[in-house]
Amino acid sequence: MKTNPGRYFEDYQLGEVLRHAVPRSIGPGERALYHALYPARAALYSSDEFARASGLAASPLDDLIAFHTVFGKTVPDVSLNAVANLGYAEGRWLKPVWPGDTLRAESEVIGLKENSNGKSGVLYVRTRGFNQHDEVVLEYSRWVMVKKRRDVPAADPVVPELKKAVAAADLVVPEGLDFSRYDFALAGEPHRWGDYAIGEKIDHIDGITVEEAEHMLATRLWQNTSKVHFDVTQREDGRRLIYGGHVISLARTLSFNGLANAQMIVALNGGAHANPCFSGDTVRAWSEVLDKAETPAPGVGALRLRLVAVKQGAAPFALKGEDGRYLPEVLLDLDYWALIPL
Amino acid sequence: MKTNPGRYFEDYQLGEVLRHAVPRSIGPGERALYHALYPARAALYSSDEFARASGLAASPLDDLIAFHTVFGKTVPDVSLNAVANLGYAEGRWLKPVWPGDTLRAESEVIGLKENSNGKSGVLYVRTRGFNQHDEVVLEYSRWVMVKKRRDVPAADPVVPELKKAVAAADLVVPEGLDFSRYDFALAGEPHRWGDYAIGEKIDHIDGITVEEAEHMLATRLWQNTSKVHFDVTQREDGRRLIYGGHVISLARTLSFNGLANAQMIVALNGGAHANPCFSGDTVRAWSEVLDKAETPAPGVGALRLRLVAVKQGAAPFALKGEDGRYLPEVLLDLDYWALIPL
Amino acid sequence: MKTNPGRYFEDYQLGEVLRHAVPRSIGPGERALYHALYPARAALYSSDEFARASGLAASPLDDLIAFHTVFGKTVPDVSLNAVANLGYAEGRWLKPVWPGDTLRAESEVIGLKENSNGKSGVLYVRTRGFNQHDEVVLEYSRWVMVKKRRDVPAADPVVPELKKAVAAADLVVPEGLDFSRYDFALAGEPHRWGDYAIGEKIDHIDGITVEEAEHMLATRLWQNTSKVHFDVTQREDGRRLIYGGHVISLARTLSFNGLANAQMIVALNGGAHANPCFSGDTVRAWSEVLDKAETPAPGVGALRLRLVAVKQGAAPFALKGEDGRYLPEVLLDLDYWALIPL
Repeated sequence: MKTNPGRYFEDYQLGEVLRHAVPRSIGPGERALYHALYPARAALYSSDEFARASGLAASPLDDLIAFHTVFGKTVPDVSLNAVANLGYAEGRWLKPVWPGDTLRAESEVIGLKENSNGKSGVLYVRTRGFNQHDEVVLEYSRWVMVKKRRDVPAADPVVPELKKAVAAADLVVPEGLDFSRYDFALAGEPHRWGDYAIGEKIDHIDGITVEEAEHMLATRLWQNTSKVHFDVTQREDGRRLIYGGHVISLARTLSFNGLANAQMIVALNGGAHANPCFSGDTVRAWSEVLDKAETPAPGVGALRLRLVAVKQGAAPFALKGEDGRYLPEVLLDLDYWALIPL
Repeated sequence: MKTNPGRYFEDYQLGEVLRHAVPRSIGPGERALYHALYPARAALYSSDEFARASGLAASPLDDLIAFHTVFGKTVPDVSLNAVANLGYAEGRWLKPVWPGDTLRAESEVIGLKENSNGKSGVLYVRTRGFNQHDEVVLEYSRWVMVKKRRDVPAADPVVPELKKAVAAADLVVPEGLDFSRYDFALAGEPHRWGDYAIGEKIDHIDGITVEEAEHMLATRLWQNTSKVHFDVTQREDGRRLIYGGHVISLARTLSFNGLANAQMIVALNGGAHANPCFSGDTVRAWSEVLDKAETPAPGVGALRLRLVAVKQGAAPFALKGEDGRYLPEVLLDLDYWALIPL
Repeated sequence: MKTNPGRYFEDYQLGEVLRHAVPRSIGPGERALYHALYPARAALYSSDEFARASGLAASPLDDLIAFHTVFGKTVPDVSLNAVANLGYAEGRWLKPVWPGDTLRAESEVIGLKENSNGKSGVLYVRTRGFNQHDEVVLEYSRWVMVKKRRDVPAADPVVPELKKAVAAADLVVPEGLDFSRYDFALAGEPHRWGDYAIGEKIDHIDGITVEEAEHMLATRLWQNTSKVHFDVTQREDGRRLIYGGHVISLARTLSFNGLANAQMIVALNGGAHANPCFSGDTVRAWSEVLDKAETPAPGVGALRLRLVAVKQGAAPFALKGEDGRYLPEVLLDLDYWALIPL
């Protein structure tokens, strides 16, 4: 058999390193597409001039371009037979990705725990994305539920200890970043680090009704091969499931309206794809400030933010029901750190 | 409140300069998307070699990429609460925009006139787009009807005097442009300046049925944040209104068939978005030659053209009814100057 | 009349050379769009680093980008009034196309044969695509059925002799290509030249449900002006016919799953667009190994492959019925040579 059937739960071994296929050079084309697919307006990722005034050599590629590219590489080895994408933790952006860079990815199996039904199990991987200089640009842990194919006995369960959030002291600020002469008018909003309070919630107001063509263009762009996003015959309801990362990027870019100065994502603390998103849904977003920190870089602060994507019918700032489960209108609950001028 | 509610009529002051947010670097990615979104075939904007043979350093970005990018920047400050986009005047392209350039924009309030109902008013702005060298690449006047939010007394009305058309003598030809060795076969049609007569009308024949995904990709690409283009909950009919600039670019690129050599737009004399365009409409275009002029540049003439976009059901060259109003099938009536080989 | 009505059968003369309009510079934007429109994952066209490790200066633009760009240029002169796209033969890729190259095209009329009904005829052309150095990057023969407009007597029929396949000895391997240190893990599959047997068939498993916006974006990107792809009023059934090249690229990129190492197309032996493809169809692909050859380049072998695209309802590996005609679910039957590591 020449084609890739994907791996099943029993095919993974603890400590194994999966070297993912198809390195990818990304540049101005991917950037333009990102800006066409999402309402991306963060000045640092929009303007070379703004980036230079902030101490960088040029405008790097959007943080989530790096994430989606690395994530896409892992799909054929990690989640082709996944039943569910369960969570993320300990994600950090370690180096900007510049136009022209080539990314590749590796994942180490850091945990395996068979479900009690014996038909599936939870796979934990630690993924790292590298540039052409073999520098790690991005790392994160992710766990997915994967089907078993054969009735083999499970090894002893190993569940990695993952931090609830990246500590502020562990955030990596891009070399040279300096917000001390930041132009708030050009960036689009006057709100600086000091204007945000822990516990504050922001309704980002804007909404986008999503189309099949858009999410498929995006998902192919990241070379994500998961069948359910492309092929109406893969699900009983005949619908194409929208790649969760498409919802992440929609919500993140919609959050510009109220968080225009939260320029760069530097850490991913956690995330849940609470409910599936389909074509025709109108996606909105709200944020909650979870924590605040200063950084050693001049003028650069950090906000820890909850980013929630919802669809039509959602009540303001509603997240979970009395049973503790996500409400059906909630699509995404993401926890991340972003850099913002002090 | 952290989000931008947009400005209302009473928030503008005569003479005020709005410095629009989010500078944008544009390049080969935006160009490729423009060519995917529209049937753009003008040789000067398609081929570096053709542009060099015409005296330019390389192929600049399409004139309407510059327009849409600058226009998009103005939306959050000028037209977020606009009821209608009423008109354009005195538009000029002053410098080519090259791949890699970074554009930003400013608008000066040049007129304010409250409507007799006291619930809205007409705002006139003079918008200028700048490149990273602070050179003005594009300027135009635009007026929109904006809602009032508060019941405050109106200032004395000021309506700017705007020329009906840019005078031929005021057209700016890009430095170095030389059509004296123009290759008509490579450009796609044999018709030169002398072949067009004032009053001549051209049916551009081709049509394009438009899709939701396309106009949203385009509108986001220009960082245009107007909600009605993206969100089905914004209008009572549940339809997404297509950005008027999408119709301008569709009509302009469809006009290649008959005006292949009218390479570069250099002035926008006026324009009306006569009726809304929706997904599923099939857009066609026709042109009328309104005026002709020579320019000081070698081999370079100018045509003043009316460009009319229509949808299905339109009669040939029909524009207005007996009541003097645009027919319901007319989407756009644009008046511009373009450069064409003598 | 200023617009192009297209040519009719009686307008062509044997030996005539059609110099096609609108040269096109292509680069990183077109590449990114290609990767968004199709699930393209061939490592050589994805990564500059992988291409350099294979002896090339950088990653060239995908072979089919060159094909579609050249093909698109021919449409206004060759197939605007075509009733059917009948076949391809003797296609060869002679030089890689690099980002920044400018392509133009010419076609020579090599055959003309009126149909017995006197209302149409078959036009044979030999098309060549050139880069900005006037080097031929691609050549192929193609024949189409074209309508007659006037009742003029037909010239004596001339049907060119076209080879059933490009001989292995005539394949042109890009200068410098060296697969002797090929990284199979990075490329995505372990299968090398020796692992494929003549007669072997591969089901590529994956499917993509196609959307109107996608095929129109693609078709415009190649400046293909054929009306039936864009305008719902062109066909009695009100459907937009999907450009056959869109199906070629879908099938070719879907074939990555099983043919990941068949990196570069170097010859097109033949091809038939067996049935039309419409929005909503789910496209799948299978391949058959038709022939194998070695090449003089280090570590580089060649496979001659049949690539079949099918839609929903197709039986495994089914191609033609008992009557010798393509089954209704078959969209494409393509015959090409690709380079693969030995």
